[in-house]
Amino acid sequence: MTDFDFRIEDIQTVHIWQARERIRPYVYHTPLVYSPALSQRTGGEVYLKMEIWQKCGCFKVRGAINTVATLSEEQRRRGLVTCSSGNHGTALAYAASLFGRPPTRVYLPKNAEPAKVSRIRSFGAEPVFHGENFLEAYAEAVAYYKRTGATYVHSHGDPRVIAGQGTIGIEIMEDLPDAEMILVPVGGGGILSGIAMIAKSVNPAIRMIGVESEAAPGGSLSFRDGRCHEWVEIKPGIADGIMGTLTPLTYELTRSRVETIEVVSDAEIVAAMRAFQEDEQIMVEPAACVGLAAVLAGKVSVKGKKAVFVLTGRNVNARKFNELIANGV
Amino acid sequence: MTDFDFRIEDIQTVHIWQARERIRPYVYHTPLVYSPALSQRTGGEVYLKMEIWQKCGCFKVRGAINTVATLSEEQRRRGLVTCSSGNHGTALAYAASLFGRPPTRVYLPKNAEPAKVSRIRSFGAEPVFHGENFLEAYAEAVAYYKRTGATYVHSHGDPRVIAGQGTIGIEIMEDLPDAEMILVPVGGGGILSGIAMIAKSVNPAIRMIGVESEAAPGGSLSFRDGRCHEWVEIKPGIADGIMGTLTPLTYELTRSRVETIEVVSDAEIVAAMRAFQEDEQIMVEPAACVGLAAVLAGKVSVKGKKAVFVLTGRNVNARKFNELIANGV
Repeated sequence: MTDFDFRIEDIQTVHIWQARERIRPYVYHTPLVYSPALSQRTGGEVYLKMEIWQKCGCFKVRGAINTVATLSEEQRRRGLVTCSSGNHGTALAYAASLFGRPPTRVYLPKNAEPAKVSRIRSFGAEPVFHGENFLEAYAEAVAYYKRTGATYVHSHGDPRVIAGQGTIGIEIMEDLPDAEMILVPVGGGGILSGIAMIAKSVNPAIRMIGVESEAAPGGSLSFRDGRCHEWVEIKPGIADGIMGTLTPLTYELTRSRVETIEVVSDAEIVAAMRAFQEDEQIMVEPAACVGLAAVLAGKVSVKGKKAVFVLTGRNVNARKFNELIANGV
Repeated sequence: MTDFDFRIEDIQTVHIWQARERIRPYVYHTPLVYSPALSQRTGGEVYLKMEIWQKCGCFKVRGAINTVATLSEEQRRRGLVTCSSGNHGTALAYAASLFGRPPTRVYLPKNAEPAKVSRIRSFGAEPVFHGENFLEAYAEAVAYYKRTGATYVHSHGDPRVIAGQGTIGIEIMEDLPDAEMILVPVGGGGILSGIAMIAKSVNPAIRMIGVESEAAPGGSLSFRDGRCHEWVEIKPGIADGIMGTLTPLTYELTRSRVETIEVVSDAEIVAAMRAFQEDEQIMVEPAACVGLAAVLAGKVSVKGKKAVFVLTGRNVNARKFNELIANGV
């Protein structure tokens, strides 16, 4: 099944620069924070890209705003739709609220977390409940866009979304042009694609490292086998923000620009959550901890290197966070 | 005992604007974040001034940088000194690191937390241990500056420091000129003085609310009695960032510009810490939670008002934070 027909020609590096100009009034250029304590802990020179401090608490507003900003009046009138029980749904609702509140539907499985639903609603979008899980809600969202001509805003496979997420790469290279490594969480690979396009265009010698959950290992399997694993079994895991796999487009974009994609376990993620809390007094959602998790687990070395960890979001339920910190998985 | 002879004429509103221009390259204009969840919780329109995301995790860098930036070469050569076991010591060390690393001493009691000591050292300053408590370390620091001609950088009583902290007020009024209330933590009153000077100069109708710990109630006692309580008993409390009292200068600056100073208990502070964690996924140090604590305890109402809470810092030990969240005081 291919619901979206995006090709590699649809996204070029210059689109990311255009996206940056477009979204600049609406997003923060987030700080790149040097961490003495995490540098000591890892043996590297550690910088944290603070997308946990981005609007809505997550980088996803970049891609959503870039997409909505590029639509015509007519397209906006026909409405927007996506499927997401997490950060992307909130981000699209927020983006729509900035551009005249076009009708915006966010499809969710029936068991979606009430706090997230009320957040989507608070920006004026309409949560639509369908099915028992993500795939059922997704199928209904796709049917809706095909039926109505609304614009489907894909969470990671859409070139406009990738261009928006890639603006993080511009900010990193502006603030630390001699970065030697960038570690990025991988779900669908949108943010990794965008950052890698910029970073490699500025400095081909920079090392790009993707890290994903072992519960959703589509990226590392694809890299291992030299073909895109578009369908992989997703097991239960704590990193709910990255429970996905590459699309043909993000596979093409990353295979020539990313050195490796590593996997980490939930226990390794919790160790990184604890380190962030102890060393920097920040709550980081599990999905955003995978880079540090890989380093602390000895799977990636940053020794002696200027290494940037992209902290993608902070949207973790406080009760869940405290439970994981106290008792592990 | 008066170790410092600052007069009301030494600080004027324009000094805060000058400070802003001076410190602009070195500090973040931190976001003013609208919080839907805390608005719902309190009945107000709640905005959070995110000094928890400032350099070094606390607003204190503003005053420290402004002070160091104004010193002559000769003054820098003679060195800097302060006494602080917390955020101000780190801030001064950081400020000195930006201006050629003049010799900088930070006096601390012998029982100071090792993590804070190593942080001070990491910026190139020299921690000096003296005595069993803050007052003993402070006396030695003052003796050192009187003996050597080093510049003593007072944590809240110095006009240059007050001017630096006041730049927060400029940012708030720029970002939300129709703010109706600003709630500020009170220890020595430096940040409250600076913000109140700006806010009242922009809009005399704005309500300025100071909040302090009931363990160190010098501000509220001073307001009650119409005279500065320069010496009050400090009881044990969790809000270690505000265990102080007004100076004659900060009393003069606040008495005509601040509507009220309220006190909150440690239990009320913990309730606010929990609310910040649940609603916004942020770790906020106890001292920075007093404004929300006062509102949640029913001591201040923000109902129907655009209310700004100044979140002064995030530097709380993770173990202590988790213990307070889980078990209270």
